[in-house]
Amino acid sequence: MLLRMPREASTAARTDTPLYVRIAETLVQQVASGALRPGDRVPSLRTLSEQQHVSVTTAVQAYVWLENRGYLEARPQSGFYVRTPLARLIPEPQFEANPSKPAALINNAVLAGIIEPAADPANVPFGAGCMSPELFPNRRLNMILRDIVRQKPMHSANYAYPPGVERLRHQIARRALAAGCRLSPRDVVITSGAQEAVNLSLRAVTRPGEVIAVESPTHFGILESAASLKLNVLEISTHPQGGMDLDELERAIKKHSVKACVVMPNCHNPLGYVLPNSHKQALVELTARRNVAVIEDDLFGDLAFDVPRPFTAKSFDRKGLVLLCSSASKALCPGYRIGWVSAGRFQPEIERLKLITSIAAPSLPQWVLAEFLSSGGYDRYLKKLRAALAGQVETLRQAAFQCFPKGTRISRPAGGHLLWIELPAKIDAMKLWRAALGEHITILPGPIFSAAGRYRNHIRLNAGITPSEARNRALATLGRLCVDRA
Amino acid sequence: MLLRMPREASTAARTDTPLYVRIAETLVQQVASGALRPGDRVPSLRTLSEQQHVSVTTAVQAYVWLENRGYLEARPQSGFYVRTPLARLIPEPQFEANPSKPAALINNAVLAGIIEPAADPANVPFGAGCMSPELFPNRRLNMILRDIVRQKPMHSANYAYPPGVERLRHQIARRALAAGCRLSPRDVVITSGAQEAVNLSLRAVTRPGEVIAVESPTHFGILESAASLKLNVLEISTHPQGGMDLDELERAIKKHSVKACVVMPNCHNPLGYVLPNSHKQALVELTARRNVAVIEDDLFGDLAFDVPRPFTAKSFDRKGLVLLCSSASKALCPGYRIGWVSAGRFQPEIERLKLITSIAAPSLPQWVLAEFLSSGGYDRYLKKLRAALAGQVETLRQAAFQCFPKGTRISRPAGGHLLWIELPAKIDAMKLWRAALGEHITILPGPIFSAAGRYRNHIRLNAGITPSEARNRALATLGRLCVDRA
Repeated sequence: MLLRMPREASTAARTDTPLYVRIAETLVQQVASGALRPGDRVPSLRTLSEQQHVSVTTAVQAYVWLENRGYLEARPQSGFYVRTPLARLIPEPQFEANPSKPAALINNAVLAGIIEPAADPANVPFGAGCMSPELFPNRRLNMILRDIVRQKPMHSANYAYPPGVERLRHQIARRALAAGCRLSPRDVVITSGAQEAVNLSLRAVTRPGEVIAVESPTHFGILESAASLKLNVLEISTHPQGGMDLDELERAIKKHSVKACVVMPNCHNPLGYVLPNSHKQALVELTARRNVAVIEDDLFGDLAFDVPRPFTAKSFDRKGLVLLCSSASKALCPGYRIGWVSAGRFQPEIERLKLITSIAAPSLPQWVLAEFLSSGGYDRYLKKLRAALAGQVETLRQAAFQCFPKGTRISRPAGGHLLWIELPAKIDAMKLWRAALGEHITILPGPIFSAAGRYRNHIRLNAGITPSEARNRALATLGRLCVDRA
Repeated sequence: MLLRMPREASTAARTDTPLYVRIAETLVQQVASGALRPGDRVPSLRTLSEQQHVSVTTAVQAYVWLENRGYLEARPQSGFYVRTPLARLIPEPQFEANPSKPAALINNAVLAGIIEPAADPANVPFGAGCMSPELFPNRRLNMILRDIVRQKPMHSANYAYPPGVERLRHQIARRALAAGCRLSPRDVVITSGAQEAVNLSLRAVTRPGEVIAVESPTHFGILESAASLKLNVLEISTHPQGGMDLDELERAIKKHSVKACVVMPNCHNPLGYVLPNSHKQALVELTARRNVAVIEDDLFGDLAFDVPRPFTAKSFDRKGLVLLCSSASKALCPGYRIGWVSAGRFQPEIERLKLITSIAAPSLPQWVLAEFLSSGGYDRYLKKLRAALAGQVETLRQAAFQCFPKGTRISRPAGGHLLWIELPAKIDAMKLWRAALGEHITILPGPIFSAAGRYRNHIRLNAGITPSEARNRALATLGRLCVDRA
């Protein structure tokens, strides 16, 4: 029998919980039981390592995990202290199994009108999907860019035909090891961002009129792609921490002849969860038995808060049925338009589709990225970035919980920089979106994350923007608009 | 009654033939009648202008036209002389009306295998579609690029959401005037190259299973796009100088419920013709009467040999049914991956499709191109480039005619850098392609330019590569391979 999704996010039940998480959770229990109180100093790293018979590194991981979740705070020159465990008190969005039927997207006409203001610098971009520009390693990327232009003055005079620049594919394959994948450079096709990667993947594994299964809620980009390819979308009930309901998925595959399944097991957009390996493996084994392709969007995978970096579902692929899509857009350089796909048995078809869809990805950014990834600074940068994002996410979570009306529920992301917020049932997210826009604030309304127009009282907020007075004022305004409607 | 395609390329019959062409053709007639012989000096520009009561500029245009076609040669400090009129002696590919039925593409699996070696620097790239890197203004583009990186150090930290960078759209709209189009920046959507522009256009105006009409032969990229979108393709007989047979097109539209028509009226790929305005207008009026969308690929339009730059079919669009696609890939920087589409009534749908297909075009190249186009050097550069290409095309034409077996026919391009060659009927282009590849020479075999696998004894050669010993040897080898088979 397969291990299925835990209905509650009880990490203790997961056989693959890392040691440092188990240690950290012991401390969470002490806080919960009152044995440790806000303001108490916890054991030093050395003491913890001795008490638990673990390395100091593991002790550090445990405390970082706790810090990222708002349980501990580090006081310079002093040690770690128990923080007011507000994080624990914020309820998460509710889960209700709600099987649906395959449907064509109904609300796709609104998207452009929602994205355009989210990108307008005149508005506070809670609706955007990008971090603040100053969080990216722009300086270093520009230094490398200038070097490459000097070394390859004719960089723009040729197409970098699919599969793309070999040196970059090599770096991507090398880094995939940390995500549990053994890839060769030949397994990677460079695309014009992850959105193109997902699009080409859908085109490689489906034909118009066929059915694909998606998480509910899921990223609107996937729904829009599916609609434009005349695919029917089946939303599978998805737990805010535990991911897609695999029993429902299995029944759906049998009933509706599902051709492909699109998932984001790491730092789900918008829910923010990272699934345990057991769940990823169960998903891959289930779909493999029925020869259903899995399109895995790992766009935010490098932004998971915990170390080591989470595995991809692709790691468990034995039949070449998983198409792993990702890009440099979330962690490094959205403007470069560089993504990639590792497509298993569909690799030749993806290469062909890339060629006939947009010939090639831009050349210069491929060389710059290859140099950046090979020069070793990426992991150091990611470490800092993840800590910054974890802090920003937690801060926005707590601030939002204080501004928003009673009954609000907020996701507890394990990575990325997006919050999924369930507002009291009376609040209509589309109306809230419009009212917020009147105040020059953008949000993303829940219904664009569902083919069936669900999540009428949900919104997605971007915690990737660095805190500022303007941002805080905007959040207060947003809270007031909600309270007025609740 | 509409003016239809001239069956023979008799420019005298075109009411819109420019004055300088009419003057030039008088001179061609004098050569043909023997009144002027190879080596004769022709009147000076001043004399010609006085004799013909035209400006010196018009006289220059006439002589440049004749020089580009191999009738005249300029001798420094001396004047213009009649050249051996070999150009005139090379027969052009034959035309045979050959109406077909809508069909799905049959030969699309081979494309990747043909493009990959054409891009491999180990092979002589007669099969490529790009010019030699040193013909591009790389130095100037790099200078601008460095400036922009300095001015906008965070260029890569954001998406340049559709419709794209305003400054670039402004420049594209400004330049469109010379091609007969009144566009505003708002009419332009930036894409990841022209191939994406054509793809998005096809998706905007058709649904899977519908029929589109194309020229025969046509660019394989169009056929591949159509196939991947599950469209059926109807090849319309196309004259090597006069373009698509509009009578046949009109009958086909009635009979097969054609939804869109994809054409390249300027510097057709692979035939090389530039259609007269009357033909462009007739095409647009015919399709408008039946509400058929026209996707116009103007990719090579800036590389037409004659001045002024030819109009686009879009210039005659009164109903917003023409989707004009182009890019910077042929004249400036293929590696940038910047194209655009001006889509008339389909503009909002194109914007939406661009967003959900690949989010945005790369940011930095858009700013660099905008600066390059606004700084005024483009026209000067184009003038030099056109002259260089016209020379290279004519040289390769004549060299090929001498190497290839008796019965070979070669196109007489009015722009671009591609030659379409009809070999003796016995020669199988696919076999020739394979044999040439064995000698590290690439060509493009005719059948990839037809959905129905026509043009079995045709090939496309790239005259964009600058002449060299290696190129000349490769051409001789190619000729020998043909002679062995003839």
